[in-house]
Amino acid sequence: MASLSCSSDLATLINHTATANYLCNQFDSISRKLNDATYAVDNTYLLFSAYLVFAMQLGFAMLCAGSVRAKNTMNIMLTNVLDAAAGGLSYYLFGFAFAFGAPSNGFIGRHFFGLRDYPTPSTDYSFFLYQWAFAIAAAGITSGSIAERTQFVAYLIYSSFLTGFVYPIVSHWFWSGDGWASATRIDGNVLFGSGVIDFAGSGVVHMVGGIAGLWGALIEGPRIGRFDRTGRSVALRGHSASLVVLGSFLLWFGWYGFNPGSFFTIAKGYGRLGYYGQWSAIGRTAVTTTLAGSTAALTTLFSKRLLAGHWNVIDVCNGLLGGFAAITSGCAVVEPWAAIVCGFVAAWVLIGLNKLAAKVEYDDPLEAAQLHGGCGAWGVLFTGLFAKREYVEEIYGIGRPCGALMGGGGKLLAAQLIQIVVVCGWVSATMGPLFYGLHKLNLLRISRDDETAGMDLTRHGGFAYAYHDDEDGSSRGVGFMMRKIEPASTSPSPPVAPLSISSL
Amino acid sequence: MASLSCSSDLATLINHTATANYLCNQFDSISRKLNDATYAVDNTYLLFSAYLVFAMQLGFAMLCAGSVRAKNTMNIMLTNVLDAAAGGLSYYLFGFAFAFGAPSNGFIGRHFFGLRDYPTPSTDYSFFLYQWAFAIAAAGITSGSIAERTQFVAYLIYSSFLTGFVYPIVSHWFWSGDGWASATRIDGNVLFGSGVIDFAGSGVVHMVGGIAGLWGALIEGPRIGRFDRTGRSVALRGHSASLVVLGSFLLWFGWYGFNPGSFFTIAKGYGRLGYYGQWSAIGRTAVTTTLAGSTAALTTLFSKRLLAGHWNVIDVCNGLLGGFAAITSGCAVVEPWAAIVCGFVAAWVLIGLNKLAAKVEYDDPLEAAQLHGGCGAWGVLFTGLFAKREYVEEIYGIGRPCGALMGGGGKLLAAQLIQIVVVCGWVSATMGPLFYGLHKLNLLRISRDDETAGMDLTRHGGFAYAYHDDEDGSSRGVGFMMRKIEPASTSPSPPVAPLSISSL
Amino acid sequence: MASLSCSSDLATLINHTATANYLCNQFDSISRKLNDATYAVDNTYLLFSAYLVFAMQLGFAMLCAGSVRAKNTMNIMLTNVLDAAAGGLSYYLFGFAFAFGAPSNGFIGRHFFGLRDYPTPSTDYSFFLYQWAFAIAAAGITSGSIAERTQFVAYLIYSSFLTGFVYPIVSHWFWSGDGWASATRIDGNVLFGSGVIDFAGSGVVHMVGGIAGLWGALIEGPRIGRFDRTGRSVALRGHSASLVVLGSFLLWFGWYGFNPGSFFTIAKGYGRLGYYGQWSAIGRTAVTTTLAGSTAALTTLFSKRLLAGHWNVIDVCNGLLGGFAAITSGCAVVEPWAAIVCGFVAAWVLIGLNKLAAKVEYDDPLEAAQLHGGCGAWGVLFTGLFAKREYVEEIYGIGRPCGALMGGGGKLLAAQLIQIVVVCGWVSATMGPLFYGLHKLNLLRISRDDETAGMDLTRHGGFAYAYHDDEDGSSRGVGFMMRKIEPASTSPSPPVAPLSISSL
Repeated sequence: MASLSCSSDLATLINHTATANYLCNQFDSISRKLNDATYAVDNTYLLFSAYLVFAMQLGFAMLCAGSVRAKNTMNIMLTNVLDAAAGGLSYYLFGFAFAFGAPSNGFIGRHFFGLRDYPTPSTDYSFFLYQWAFAIAAAGITSGSIAERTQFVAYLIYSSFLTGFVYPIVSHWFWSGDGWASATRIDGNVLFGSGVIDFAGSGVVHMVGGIAGLWGALIEGPRIGRFDRTGRSVALRGHSASLVVLGSFLLWFGWYGFNPGSFFTIAKGYGRLGYYGQWSAIGRTAVTTTLAGSTAALTTLFSKRLLAGHWNVIDVCNGLLGGFAAITSGCAVVEPWAAIVCGFVAAWVLIGLNKLAAKVEYDDPLEAAQLHGGCGAWGVLFTGLFAKREYVEEIYGIGRPCGALMGGGGKLLAAQLIQIVVVCGWVSATMGPLFYGLHKLNLLRISRDDETAGMDLTRHGGFAYAYHDDEDGSSRGVGFMMRKIEPASTSPSPPVAPLSISSL
Repeated sequence: MASLSCSSDLATLINHTATANYLCNQFDSISRKLNDATYAVDNTYLLFSAYLVFAMQLGFAMLCAGSVRAKNTMNIMLTNVLDAAAGGLSYYLFGFAFAFGAPSNGFIGRHFFGLRDYPTPSTDYSFFLYQWAFAIAAAGITSGSIAERTQFVAYLIYSSFLTGFVYPIVSHWFWSGDGWASATRIDGNVLFGSGVIDFAGSGVVHMVGGIAGLWGALIEGPRIGRFDRTGRSVALRGHSASLVVLGSFLLWFGWYGFNPGSFFTIAKGYGRLGYYGQWSAIGRTAVTTTLAGSTAALTTLFSKRLLAGHWNVIDVCNGLLGGFAAITSGCAVVEPWAAIVCGFVAAWVLIGLNKLAAKVEYDDPLEAAQLHGGCGAWGVLFTGLFAKREYVEEIYGIGRPCGALMGGGGKLLAAQLIQIVVVCGWVSATMGPLFYGLHKLNLLRISRDDETAGMDLTRHGGFAYAYHDDEDGSSRGVGFMMRKIEPASTSPSPPVAPLSISSL
Repeated sequence: MASLSCSSDLATLINHTATANYLCNQFDSISRKLNDATYAVDNTYLLFSAYLVFAMQLGFAMLCAGSVRAKNTMNIMLTNVLDAAAGGLSYYLFGFAFAFGAPSNGFIGRHFFGLRDYPTPSTDYSFFLYQWAFAIAAAGITSGSIAERTQFVAYLIYSSFLTGFVYPIVSHWFWSGDGWASATRIDGNVLFGSGVIDFAGSGVVHMVGGIAGLWGALIEGPRIGRFDRTGRSVALRGHSASLVVLGSFLLWFGWYGFNPGSFFTIAKGYGRLGYYGQWSAIGRTAVTTTLAGSTAALTTLFSKRLLAGHWNVIDVCNGLLGGFAAITSGCAVVEPWAAIVCGFVAAWVLIGLNKLAAKVEYDDPLEAAQLHGGCGAWGVLFTGLFAKREYVEEIYGIGRPCGALMGGGGKLLAAQLIQIVVVCGWVSATMGPLFYGLHKLNLLRISRDDETAGMDLTRHGGFAYAYHDDEDGSSRGVGFMMRKIEPASTSPSPPVAPLSISSL
């Protein structure tokens, strides 16, 4: 396009400086405005994608709230709000710097602390916002695994550590231009000549959150009553299926920011045909995402009908999310039909891991380790098998290896396996000791009494719901909310825990 | 704009090939980047519109959930999740092909099965996604009509048939470039020299969903207790007004994708003035949508205050949605003041049809047939009366007839009437026999016992809510959720249905 | 860019008309398409921002619903739906004309009634839609302050007056191109050489809504039971923390339309560097918004832990919103680190004002006057202290004064103080008398009986929830919803108010 050299080049050609200047000014003027329009559309695209990803935090909050018992609703929702808020500060101060600070070495970033020297020619505030919305998602996953039994102080500690350090490092490795395993390394020196393709983060986000949750839940042990004396699994049902469905749909909605948004820009033709470009790849990514989730949901519906005898919306929602977690890695580089395969297998991975969890008496109230960890790992593998050459080359450059089942040999698959091992190792080596330390210091699990009574009454200012209030006010000061109703009791029900009603 | 002929044309003019090449290269380079930017903004616009339309599915889910009794919440939410999931697969496999497969005859499309040979120069993945989000809306409407009494297997059958076949055919007729009644026929040979203007689908989506629901609800008959022995209407109130309002607002939010999004592209000037173009028409469409819904809501508020004696938010929400369903057909081609007329009449159409429904003992838990069918039909008619010449010509081409009351003669109105007849006929001829067949096979309606107990306990794994849990665990295994409270009973309440608590 | 003069200019230069025409046609063609693309991206940006702001109305509805007692849920949600619907009509008919009708004097607009002569070269329908979404937010704020005790007729009156007149006038003063205090005055004759910088409306929206609410709540007095005989504050807890968190997150989500969207356009370079432009400023605005809210939330978390002894999600949500209300004024012109200062102080402003409110027995169910009025005023002041020269000049023009603490002298600060005084004065002078008149006419507050029973049963057609229905139908016609449970009562509970069950 029109450049500073235009005038001199053109003047040489036509030997008339005034004309050359006139024409070059026209070109320059148009180019500048076109440049603005292009930045505008790319940033519009990325900003609204970031807003959608942020909406997932609301989705997590509602999903988590609905999946726990009513007595712990205030607690779990607080952790979700704080993931976003505390993550906002820590990611601004250092998390983003660790992840995307450039230039840096392959292991950790070291610029942009507090957004210093920002924006740059290649990344703008919209990119920061987008990455922040990703960072808080990881912590949200973990809070599901250890719900209903974790001290709030422990939450504050692990959440900060995860969002501010553990997760940013992983995203640096796999996503930054300097990361040792990144497929978008600036120097082109990619792992196995391929680099890891974890497009939107089945490994970077979901496995990280899920494995962190796994260690937390393992070290804490199951909730009281989750397994009876004989080891039989007893469901501790969540208190509101409506909130679960609300949360799942919001996550679906937000996933359209998570996966297609990971292209960061949209105004880029792919050359071959004028109408085919990054906008097409983005649309296709939304389609693969939809198909993987849909297939997983349907697979779960019929499988659970056969296995458990009823049509269960909660299971279907979990299956749906498992399909999304799995396709997140390869969403941009696989054909729609392959996304159906991805979702189908993801549903069975989740069902299998849930069976296994019940067998080994592992209790994860949101199935987060199984869903995000297990389906996430499957997704990373899936990309190594099904990535299509054409799409890989459009996004990562000509000559990059594609999936093993698509004629690409084993290089990409090997890189994907490396990612699984490395993520498991890194998260285990950091979060495992952290949870264990908290456990040893008696900072991890709440007391038996608190767990029985629920955390909301004793720690968070009261029960989350009051569908009925004490209308005449005569018994104000006594417990007054929804209380235990003994079906066949002749003695009056005692009030639940006393509650300071002026506590708000 | 700069084309391949540029160099030769210019070389002829200036008789200096190097200069011509230089200039033409500049033009080409700018044109390519401008082409990319234009595709980018159009696809950004359409993708985010599609996400908004998808959010309507969440709106439907919450609206439906809140409008049914608590005991059927799991059931209705499951149908809403599955509309989206099953619709994703079926629309990918064949629904989209039936609807928009091109080239084709006027009755059914026959390309793009499984998105084969896709994208094309004129439609991209974003268009598929957008149309999928529309397709699942139709099935969502129907599930409201037959809520609380339909077997889940019947739902699976009719929903697949509606989303995969009945609806795609209708959208082919009225919206595809080949459809016999489409106003955007590629060959220009439009019905009555006009074609049907159903811009965003009062007929194609809302009437289809509503009439399908009408047949289902008619054949099933009213819910137990909906009309007493004397035929008096007894409201079976939904269990949560909060969910109803949440759902209604989400539908309002999503309607901004539904109506303005139906332009598909935004970067198109209308010539007359540099600042006036499709972006203006899109904004105006959002305004007409807002005004129609707002007017209908206010009309309903005051009408029901006069008729029923109280200010009712549920009625207002239904009125609002009725206004939206009506304006959906003409939203792009009418003036804002006309949208107010549209909404005002829509509110009375809904009130009138609800009165009629009560009189003939027709039970539709979501008023879906009245609202989407009735107000939708009014909307199709309204377009034939109020479409403005200028707007019709900007969108559909010079010379097209406008509304009968706007000096356009009767051609458009006649086309609109044809649409009403044809949609009623087609949906009745397909969905009527289907529902009747299911009825005859005893696959349609659940048993009296199941209906009384609610579907959630017996079919869907349990009650949707558990605001209070059995804190000491002593009575685990017995019914433990919210249970029946006898106001003046001295005998202890028996537990509701026994429930396998390890069922999740 | 290519203009009408191109051909003549170029023909003069190269002395060959055909070549000049050829080249100029190329430039024109490209310019037109570029013009379209630019309008398209700007309108896409503004439209979707408007949709996000609209989503805040849903956020308000859920926040308000969850914050009141269950017995008033239908009432408060109805007011939220009507704010949007009635606001749609009144803003279309005259509100927008009062606010942005141009040309006009500095005090009130007088064009565009009913969107006549619209759109114009400088504003399009998207701008109307965006401003409408702002207008309805103000009324939503006020309805929180006077919740649970205000007659519905009074609501209809004050809400119309506020949205249709009081608010539009304020927005005219501070935001229109003619407003006497606007920083974007077309004639450049800005107040104190600075104009008020209330970028997204801490003053124009939040203070207006909050101060209106203050007068309403002061004149109505506290809810029954809110302060006991000794004046001790007794919390009347909202009925659903889940709805509060849902609403707060939706407001957060929508604030990304509210603050960054207030740039109205995005495709505008800032000259200095090709990659730096309005898109960067927009992204930075999203970042400052995030940081202010996050900091306020965290500050509230730890402060309330120290002060009240528990970690309370409701408090954290209110703190969060206080941070947002405060940063709304300066979001576009301050550095991210300053946003942290803004949020930190906002949290303490809210805590302090809540203490003060309790001391003077002021009852505001949503803390709306404290939060939107108090934190809003702090935000206006904050901008006068921390606005950065570079950002102010990019947005408002070279030479404009910046914040007092950033080396800008006192001019901007003085203008900001003027805004606080003027907004307080105008809203007090209009809404105060209105509420007082309604009070004197006995139209303001509901009766003691209605307040005790709740407004829903007596005025809005029934209780909002029915988690348990009367399954056998035997006692139909008697009270049947969730009813009062006497913990230690031996006498049977009497049914609550009788309810016409066919009322829906």
